[in-house]
Amino acid sequence: MRDFTYYAPTEVAFGAKSEERIGALAVKYGAKRVLVHYGGQSAERSGLLGVVRKQLQEAGVAFFELGGVVPNPRVSKVREGIEICRREAIDMVLAVGGGSVIDSAKAIAFGAHYEGDVWDFFLGKAKAGECLKVATVLTIPAAGSEMSDGCVVTNEDGWHKRGYSTNKTRCCFAVMNPERTYTLPAYQTACGIVDIMMHTMERYFSLEDDMALTDNIAEAVLRTVLDWGPVAMREPENYRARAQVMWAGSLAHNDLTGCGTLGDWATHHLEHELSALFDVAHGAGLAAVWGSWARYVKGERLSRFVRFAVNVMGVENDFVDPERTALKGIERMEAFYRSIGMPTSIPELIGRPVTEEEVLTMADKCCRQDTHTEGNFKVLYRKEMEDVYRLANK
Amino acid sequence: MRDFTYYAPTEVAFGAKSEERIGALAVKYGAKRVLVHYGGQSAERSGLLGVVRKQLQEAGVAFFELGGVVPNPRVSKVREGIEICRREAIDMVLAVGGGSVIDSAKAIAFGAHYEGDVWDFFLGKAKAGECLKVATVLTIPAAGSEMSDGCVVTNEDGWHKRGYSTNKTRCCFAVMNPERTYTLPAYQTACGIVDIMMHTMERYFSLEDDMALTDNIAEAVLRTVLDWGPVAMREPENYRARAQVMWAGSLAHNDLTGCGTLGDWATHHLEHELSALFDVAHGAGLAAVWGSWARYVKGERLSRFVRFAVNVMGVENDFVDPERTALKGIERMEAFYRSIGMPTSIPELIGRPVTEEEVLTMADKCCRQDTHTEGNFKVLYRKEMEDVYRLANK
Repeated sequence: MRDFTYYAPTEVAFGAKSEERIGALAVKYGAKRVLVHYGGQSAERSGLLGVVRKQLQEAGVAFFELGGVVPNPRVSKVREGIEICRREAIDMVLAVGGGSVIDSAKAIAFGAHYEGDVWDFFLGKAKAGECLKVATVLTIPAAGSEMSDGCVVTNEDGWHKRGYSTNKTRCCFAVMNPERTYTLPAYQTACGIVDIMMHTMERYFSLEDDMALTDNIAEAVLRTVLDWGPVAMREPENYRARAQVMWAGSLAHNDLTGCGTLGDWATHHLEHELSALFDVAHGAGLAAVWGSWARYVKGERLSRFVRFAVNVMGVENDFVDPERTALKGIERMEAFYRSIGMPTSIPELIGRPVTEEEVLTMADKCCRQDTHTEGNFKVLYRKEMEDVYRLANK
Repeated sequence: MRDFTYYAPTEVAFGAKSEERIGALAVKYGAKRVLVHYGGQSAERSGLLGVVRKQLQEAGVAFFELGGVVPNPRVSKVREGIEICRREAIDMVLAVGGGSVIDSAKAIAFGAHYEGDVWDFFLGKAKAGECLKVATVLTIPAAGSEMSDGCVVTNEDGWHKRGYSTNKTRCCFAVMNPERTYTLPAYQTACGIVDIMMHTMERYFSLEDDMALTDNIAEAVLRTVLDWGPVAMREPENYRARAQVMWAGSLAHNDLTGCGTLGDWATHHLEHELSALFDVAHGAGLAAVWGSWARYVKGERLSRFVRFAVNVMGVENDFVDPERTALKGIERMEAFYRSIGMPTSIPELIGRPVTEEEVLTMADKCCRQDTHTEGNFKVLYRKEMEDVYRLANK
């Protein structure tokens, strides 16, 4: 196993009454001038923005607002936020929403004190120095950004989708009320379920497979989401189901499920090119390519896929034919995705097959600039990324 | 389920090379003058204190030393530490050792700026204000104090063993090298295994049993320790086994296994009176009373003990007779304790039965001062605590 650092300092206030703590938490973490950052009008309509304003007002914290963050958040909006923060001497960005809003808030937070353009961070040309504080009132369980060190932003100029990670903009607090997720449409709930599972699985499919505790916890997270995710879709106001999914979203991506492993992340990066090109929902994109990735790489360490099949997907272990067991695990995962309305191929995702030219474009953009590869469970070169896209294109 | 706060800010540096980071971590967390706090001479003999000194020296951090912390750490040693910290203007207490040393360090840290006597905190007469920083280089996986908010100290004047909890003295960092646990004697390893499991089980046996994710993670932790704990005893230098136990010790007590539940903690408090009176190892004391507690309370929610039996202890579920299933789970847990050399009764623990007078004394001291009860899964009044002690006395 690998040496690891586990660092998840975010103070999580979880539960039906957690919103009553927003003002006190903002004060506790030193906020004096806050930028309330959000997406569309649903945060207004639901009354949540009203609660946030009231909480900050009563706590004596000044605040400004910037809405309009879209899924696959844009660097243009980040730049807008940075300008406001500089002009108004903001000290904390409070993201009210899901992963897109939090990621946008993080980029604002490390960009505000940086002299150059914020996209430099995503190009590897800048490293986070002094940052604004970031906190969140979470409404969409999926991205796990509320406890993670990362953020992913899209540059409209060329539709590049890139990530940047720093401990400096981990949320200082995250307020999580499962009731706020009652109004999430089924499709979005399903996308979240896929994203949560994939954050766990990207770490779980590792050649460093000797940290039993991490594996057992990862499997616990996956089984919980398999069990309760569909309930949350069928009964949108089932508190218990919404709570499982919401907390799983945080634990899946705060590094707990990856202690001692070397994550793979190829599926995520293959998907980033899909959603950058076709602006599809990240979760749906992940579901569309994972099965193809899994079939393509499973031979690298079949025992891992056998374990996944038996311990997570409840497949009967065929001790004589591990290949069959492994394949059944992949098939059962795909059947689960379909059962919650998620695509398991690119044509299902975007309504048509991608062209060979698009395959080449995506594989080209997906190559890491340093290694020209992706993934760790199996290192994929450009040609192999094309193969996975083609497999997923059927 | 209950609303909860999850707050585990400790930066964990885990692995064989983690000690190389001590100096940099001390500097990162602002240490200028450190009190290196430790127990007996094993930290010196093993070379660990030498590593710590070198790390601090090279990082330019001044330090002082205070050894001699004993198991069930004494308030007299805490007072000694407080004096040094005041005299030398210490800003961080670095605990090199296990739970006793960390707990002693925490008490020093919240006592140093307090004008009255530090025992006031344990009597509920004082609340933590300004505190010194606390960090640790962990050598004994058991107490989980490296990530928890609590500490337990014994007052020799009357042999009272009491706890105090505050987020303010959570360790800012914890350096954890599994190799440092290779030299732990089998008995101490076994005591640690029990303590780790009990930290999980105290939270797991809850009437708030609707947080599936927490339950699934708790079971993952328990199964991991059941599987790998005996390996660590049989093969003391098995890195993989030592790593599972060490990391489980932290996760069992950093609140992860209790999110949304209301823990019981009666077994812990019943044990505290045993170790206060007879100065036995905490883990051994827990093993000696748990089975009796379990039999005494299981009827409060039998389904919980059935789940434990099936999901943790691998008992075949007798759907017709849940009582039988539950009981087999308890028996199998006790058999495990015996298999690692732990007692499952008080006579096995201290070499004789306790007298009826001792039973009365312990039950009397165990009663909480506010409610005169202990426990939540089943609320135990004084008479019932006596009953559990008597059951365990056979």
